[in-house]
Amino acid sequence: MVYQVDLNCDMGESFGRYKLSEQKEILAYVSSANIACGFHAGDPTVMRETVQLALENGVKIGAHPGLPDLIGFGRREMAITAQQAYDMVVYQIGALHAFLTTYNAQMQHVKPHGALYNMAAKDKELAAAIAQAVNDFSTNLVLYALSGSELAKAGEKIGLTTAHEVFADRTYQSDGSLTSRNENNALITNREQAVSQVIRMVTESKVISTQNNAVPLKADTICIHGDGKHALEFAAYITDAFQKHNIRISPV
Amino acid sequence: MVYQVDLNCDMGESFGRYKLSEQKEILAYVSSANIACGFHAGDPTVMRETVQLALENGVKIGAHPGLPDLIGFGRREMAITAQQAYDMVVYQIGALHAFLTTYNAQMQHVKPHGALYNMAAKDKELAAAIAQAVNDFSTNLVLYALSGSELAKAGEKIGLTTAHEVFADRTYQSDGSLTSRNENNALITNREQAVSQVIRMVTESKVISTQNNAVPLKADTICIHGDGKHALEFAAYITDAFQKHNIRISPV
Amino acid sequence: MVYQVDLNCDMGESFGRYKLSEQKEILAYVSSANIACGFHAGDPTVMRETVQLALENGVKIGAHPGLPDLIGFGRREMAITAQQAYDMVVYQIGALHAFLTTYNAQMQHVKPHGALYNMAAKDKELAAAIAQAVNDFSTNLVLYALSGSELAKAGEKIGLTTAHEVFADRTYQSDGSLTSRNENNALITNREQAVSQVIRMVTESKVISTQNNAVPLKADTICIHGDGKHALEFAAYITDAFQKHNIRISPV
Amino acid sequence: MVYQVDLNCDMGESFGRYKLSEQKEILAYVSSANIACGFHAGDPTVMRETVQLALENGVKIGAHPGLPDLIGFGRREMAITAQQAYDMVVYQIGALHAFLTTYNAQMQHVKPHGALYNMAAKDKELAAAIAQAVNDFSTNLVLYALSGSELAKAGEKIGLTTAHEVFADRTYQSDGSLTSRNENNALITNREQAVSQVIRMVTESKVISTQNNAVPLKADTICIHGDGKHALEFAAYITDAFQKHNIRISPV
Repeated sequence: MVYQVDLNCDMGESFGRYKLSEQKEILAYVSSANIACGFHAGDPTVMRETVQLALENGVKIGAHPGLPDLIGFGRREMAITAQQAYDMVVYQIGALHAFLTTYNAQMQHVKPHGALYNMAAKDKELAAAIAQAVNDFSTNLVLYALSGSELAKAGEKIGLTTAHEVFADRTYQSDGSLTSRNENNALITNREQAVSQVIRMVTESKVISTQNNAVPLKADTICIHGDGKHALEFAAYITDAFQKHNIRISPV
Repeated sequence: MVYQVDLNCDMGESFGRYKLSEQKEILAYVSSANIACGFHAGDPTVMRETVQLALENGVKIGAHPGLPDLIGFGRREMAITAQQAYDMVVYQIGALHAFLTTYNAQMQHVKPHGALYNMAAKDKELAAAIAQAVNDFSTNLVLYALSGSELAKAGEKIGLTTAHEVFADRTYQSDGSLTSRNENNALITNREQAVSQVIRMVTESKVISTQNNAVPLKADTICIHGDGKHALEFAAYITDAFQKHNIRISPV
Repeated sequence: MVYQVDLNCDMGESFGRYKLSEQKEILAYVSSANIACGFHAGDPTVMRETVQLALENGVKIGAHPGLPDLIGFGRREMAITAQQAYDMVVYQIGALHAFLTTYNAQMQHVKPHGALYNMAAKDKELAAAIAQAVNDFSTNLVLYALSGSELAKAGEKIGLTTAHEVFADRTYQSDGSLTSRNENNALITNREQAVSQVIRMVTESKVISTQNNAVPLKADTICIHGDGKHALEFAAYITDAFQKHNIRISPV
Repeated sequence: MVYQVDLNCDMGESFGRYKLSEQKEILAYVSSANIACGFHAGDPTVMRETVQLALENGVKIGAHPGLPDLIGFGRREMAITAQQAYDMVVYQIGALHAFLTTYNAQMQHVKPHGALYNMAAKDKELAAAIAQAVNDFSTNLVLYALSGSELAKAGEKIGLTTAHEVFADRTYQSDGSLTSRNENNALITNREQAVSQVIRMVTESKVISTQNNAVPLKADTICIHGDGKHALEFAAYITDAFQKHNIRISPV
């Protein structure tokens, strides 16, 4: 049997003179890139350059809208209203879409960033507002959301193609949620373990929780990191393992 | 003979809790509104609300991109590069376009704001970059530019429909430029004088300079102010005068 | 018997071209002003002008540090760390202090703004960090905090003079906390009722909760609003009532 | 004969998650550090950490105020008024001063950054406003300014100790100005040449212009770079050369 999964990574998170140590070579491995839209990271020039780079690499492009918190890199939860979430997502999708338009290219997906992603995973109202924003901009867009989350449910409810996202390097709880980063065992640092978890998620639609339970879960797309010193190595390693397990990497 | 001219005003310049004293009733008089896009003024929520308001009033909508200078309201010249101008204009057009898309509405035009407008009126390279940005996003957009300016020339050169803009309440020099605001006679405060200048510009395609010369000039669109205590009065007065002179107000 | 209480209001919340409808005449009534420091509101020019205005009115000056959220006016809770709270409070105190220094004037107090104030009322660690920041800058500063809150406790613990703050126009719960703004009865809109609540708080050190219990509470300083159409009227009314009840308005 | 000169470098230019490749080891070589204050670079947390680092290295500390342009790193000229320059310099000095106060440390100097530095070198009114801001905050501060510039003159005129600054890696014109970066020969890339120019400036108070003229010039402080791969090498090389020429590195 042949499986298929999307491999996505974040891109375009530099800002002005500030460069993040993103490794552009990662684009040779992934099928989709999430491009920051100027709120938590990215600026108009970085966005244009990143769109061009992704297109040159034949990678599908998505908007990666975040909270208006550059100092905090969009990782600090903020008590925004659902209406504000809707408005900031529409705004950021549009900003990225404009660059795609100048290249006659299409946007594939939208994946909220950081704290916005996490809040929308748990908060129904916020999730509904974000799904509505994506849907109101274009019903052709795919919504990327934490597998099994409120955001994934909101996307499906409104009729959007919804990609359930899993993480290679994070452990899971028996309720299907990610182990909190405050816990010691939140991260999987062993490469083999990370990859075997992913392969199980893709081929068996389940994950083994830290409580040692088999938890059912959808895995339409896998998030890998584009920064850090081992990013490229890991990308090569996981794509190699996928080939051996008949898993084809392709956009959603 | 019947003449035709567009009447435009700026809108959507509030930000968060900060409200500008814009008078929404002005939308009953104008044919086009320029909506701020979050750089010099406006925020995502204000943009959505302003788009809705303009649509309810049957007014054509344009993007009003500005410099990234909220404190200075985009009125302080900044030494940006042509590439940065291109990128920030694409970004802001896209952001506003997204809100229009959620209402199934079309964008009519793009009019740079404040210092960006003024710099592009004189600087060929900047003008070309902005015209290119508008054109790359959509060749259907109308570019609003100071009548006879470098930006108007750049728009025409690239093939965009270009609206030459004139001001009711500003005096002109014999070279067709606006009298600098540093001069005492820069502003026309007399209502009758302002309107008769506009009527001459529309019906005779010329203006009388402060040096008392008749200067040829195109007048496709007239900018009036939406704020200030006499804004509505003036709007009523000018539309009334137009009717008497067979000047029809309609979008470009 | 003669009582004494401080009357404080927020000031300097304009930003660039954006003016809040603050009524400067309120400075004739209050004894202390809290000046925004550029994060949630205010800019360097507004800060200088507001310092000068307060000095001209003989009003004591305090820093009013807030969260870095201009769009949200510092009213949206953000998941900042205690260290970040410490750093942003030190920064903002310093910025305001510099303007006071140019006028050879002293800072009297520090009062956190909006969501920072509310979070520090409940969160011990955040409260300790803010009290530490004030104390590290100067042990002569007075810390303004919600009466009975964690922030008030943290200020007292570290040895700062701490002013317990009460609100004229808010109702209280039996545990001494403010009724949430989400409740219908959170606000006191009746002027007489507001003033009589304040007088009881000042003269009897207690408040009647919405559950009709007498709750003990310290009232060193009272916050009144400097904006809104009835601000001046209310200020006149409350100062008049104070005179009749032998309550003297004076800084802490 | 023994000479004496100050060696300064910029520090604290990271922002949130964005780290500049500053080499902290440079602090072992310089006598003064200019710390960014949050407008063009730096944030409250970075400022505190950088102050601590400088103190640990026994390096004198100065404020490095810049234009409010994070995307442009404060390097794009902006048409600010003299009053705005005054206000933003007071604000930023105060913010850094607060962190020094928490360490019971003193500020030595103020050096404007980037475009603000360059504009103040040529514009008398701006220069006077900045010198006034420094002076109004404290008459004990040293003002760092381009050697022979309007800012240096303004500092001397108002009575501030003023340090004339020279650059190791920039060529000079016969009028004492720096060769514009737009010219091919603006930068000195040869290490030996750079150092011998500096030694002549310090020991003979003159520089050889690109037109091959000997131009008189004061050299109280020398700016070297703390980032880039050869920063440490160059710092070691210049301090070694200084020793051989009896030039002692010490603060102003």
